[in-house]
Amino acid sequence: MDFVDELRLLKDQLAFEHKFSVPKETKNVVIAGMGGSGIVGKIFAELYSALPVYLVDDYSTPGFVNKNTMYIAISYSGNTEETVTSLAAAMKKGANTVAITSGGKLLDMPHQRVVIPKGLQPRSALGYMLTPLLKSFNAAPRHEFQEAYAALARIDANHSEEERIAREIHEGEKIPVIYGVPPYKAVAYRWKTQFNENSKILAYSGSFPEINHNDTMALKGTYRKGEFYFIALVDGRNMAVERRIGITEAITDIKFRRIKIEGQSALARVMAAVHIGDYITYHLARMRGKDPLDVSVIEELKERLQAARE
Amino acid sequence: MDFVDELRLLKDQLAFEHKFSVPKETKNVVIAGMGGSGIVGKIFAELYSALPVYLVDDYSTPGFVNKNTMYIAISYSGNTEETVTSLAAAMKKGANTVAITSGGKLLDMPHQRVVIPKGLQPRSALGYMLTPLLKSFNAAPRHEFQEAYAALARIDANHSEEERIAREIHEGEKIPVIYGVPPYKAVAYRWKTQFNENSKILAYSGSFPEINHNDTMALKGTYRKGEFYFIALVDGRNMAVERRIGITEAITDIKFRRIKIEGQSALARVMAAVHIGDYITYHLARMRGKDPLDVSVIEELKERLQAARE
Repeated sequence: MDFVDELRLLKDQLAFEHKFSVPKETKNVVIAGMGGSGIVGKIFAELYSALPVYLVDDYSTPGFVNKNTMYIAISYSGNTEETVTSLAAAMKKGANTVAITSGGKLLDMPHQRVVIPKGLQPRSALGYMLTPLLKSFNAAPRHEFQEAYAALARIDANHSEEERIAREIHEGEKIPVIYGVPPYKAVAYRWKTQFNENSKILAYSGSFPEINHNDTMALKGTYRKGEFYFIALVDGRNMAVERRIGITEAITDIKFRRIKIEGQSALARVMAAVHIGDYITYHLARMRGKDPLDVSVIEELKERLQAARE
Repeated sequence: MDFVDELRLLKDQLAFEHKFSVPKETKNVVIAGMGGSGIVGKIFAELYSALPVYLVDDYSTPGFVNKNTMYIAISYSGNTEETVTSLAAAMKKGANTVAITSGGKLLDMPHQRVVIPKGLQPRSALGYMLTPLLKSFNAAPRHEFQEAYAALARIDANHSEEERIAREIHEGEKIPVIYGVPPYKAVAYRWKTQFNENSKILAYSGSFPEINHNDTMALKGTYRKGEFYFIALVDGRNMAVERRIGITEAITDIKFRRIKIEGQSALARVMAAVHIGDYITYHLARMRGKDPLDVSVIEELKERLQAARE
C-alpha cells in the first residue's frame, strides 16, 4: 500500500464504532499520547470541553489523577514508552483507564481497550483513534460524521490546490509556519508534524490570536523572513480572530497563505483541514523525491534508546 | 528605566505577597491569558498538577466551567480583549473568578483581584503574575523562593555566557529553536516569545520527548537546517528524556546547544531558565541595534483592531 492509499482510508475510519464507557462520576479526562497518536488528544480537546481534558506528551502523570479521572492512553503501536509509563502510574493512582491501540503492551494494562486495525502508519490512523473519543463522549452527532466523510471524499477526489501549495513551498525551499484560528490550532500542529514526517522538512506552528502578542513583533523586523511560508487556517466564522490576519499583514509586510476550510459542522471542517495538510505534505514529499512512508530515523532512535536501556 | 533595569527587578517580584483564596470545593482551574501574561499560566501548569489546570489563549471559555471552577484571568494591562471576553463568560457560568492585573477593565469584574505594580513591560512582570499563583495554591515552599532569588541574582551579576550565545545567533543570523525537557517546556516557549519581542527575530519552540516523534525525521533530511540554532534546556535530572538528545544528534547530524540549568528546587531552576533567556534575547537585541522595549507593532495592531470595532 502506498501513502496515498493510506490517505484515502481516513474517511472510512470515521465509521469505526468501538466505544468505551465513561462513568458519570468522571470529573476530568487525561489523554496521554505522543506524535501521530498524541495529535488525536489535541484535536479532541479543541472540539470537546464539557469536561476538563488534560494532555500528557511525556513520561509524566499529573498529580490530580484519581478514581474520578478517565485516563486515556493512545498509542498506535501500543509500545510507546512515554505513554506506557504514564498509564502505569495512572493505574496505581486508581484512575479509570482505557487504551486505544492496535496491539503491544497497552493491550494488557488498562480496564478498557479499543483495538484498532494494524498495518497503517500511526499518523494515517487518526480517524481510528479520534472516532472512539468523539463517540464515547458524545461529542458529535452522527450526521456530522457523514458530513466529514463527504468532505474527505471530495479532497481525495481533487487535491490539485494542495499540489499547487506544495509546489510553492518546494520551489522556494520554504519553511512552512502554520497558524490555526480556533478550532484549527491543533490542526496547525498536525500539519507541522506531517511536513516533518512525510516531507522531511522543518516546519513550525502556532495560533491566532496568540501570535499577535509575540510573533507579530518579529514578523516586522526579523532577518530571513523570505525563507518562510506562512499559512493561516481559517473558515470565515471567527471574525474577531480573522480580522487580525489582514491587520497583521498590513503592518508587518508578511503575506499569509489563507486556507479557507469549508463545511457546516466543526467536525467536518476539522477533518477537512487535517486532510488538506495530508495531501500538501504528500505532494511535497513526492516533489522532493522523499518517501512519505519512511520514518527510519525515528525507528533508529527507538532502537538506540532500547539498546541504551538494556 | 531601560530594559536591563527591568530584568533586574524579576528577583524582587518573588517577594510579592498578595494571594487569593482557593475554596476547597475547587475541582479544576482555568487560567486565561495571552502572550507575556499567558506564559505565566503555562509555567504554573508545568509546576503544579494537584488540580487540573486548563489554559485558555483565545476568546473562548471552556464548556465545563461552573461554580467549582477557579477561573483566573491574567492580563498585565487588564484590557486584553481575549482575556476580558473569556472572563465575562466564565462569570456568567458561575465560576469563582480572580484577576491578576495592574489595572484596566479586569479590576472591576471578578470576585477577587490581585493588583500588581504598573510601569513594566508585561513580559518583565512575570514574577508579579506567577508568585500569587504559586503562593495561593501552596505550590512551592518559602525556601524555594529564596533559592530562586539567589539564582536570579547570580544571573543578573554575570551574563557573559548569555552574551556569547547571543553572539553566535547574531553572527550566523540564525533562527533559534528552543526545546525544553520537562519542566522547561513552557520556558522554551517563553524564550521563543522573548526572541520575538525583545530581539525582533522569528523563533520557534518545542519539547523533548515529543520532538522525537516528528521533528527528528525532518532534522535528518531537511533543507536550510544550517540556518537554525537548536537549543535544548536540560538539568541533568531527567535522564529518560535527556539521553534522547545525544541519540538524536548522532542520527541526524544536528547539534543542540545544551543549556544546563542549575538549582535544587524546580522553582529555582525554572526561574533561572526563564532569566537566561531574558538575557540572551536582551543581548541579541543590543547587537542587532533593536530596542528590546519597543513593541510598537503590537501596539499598532491593537489600535487598528479597536478602530475596526468602532
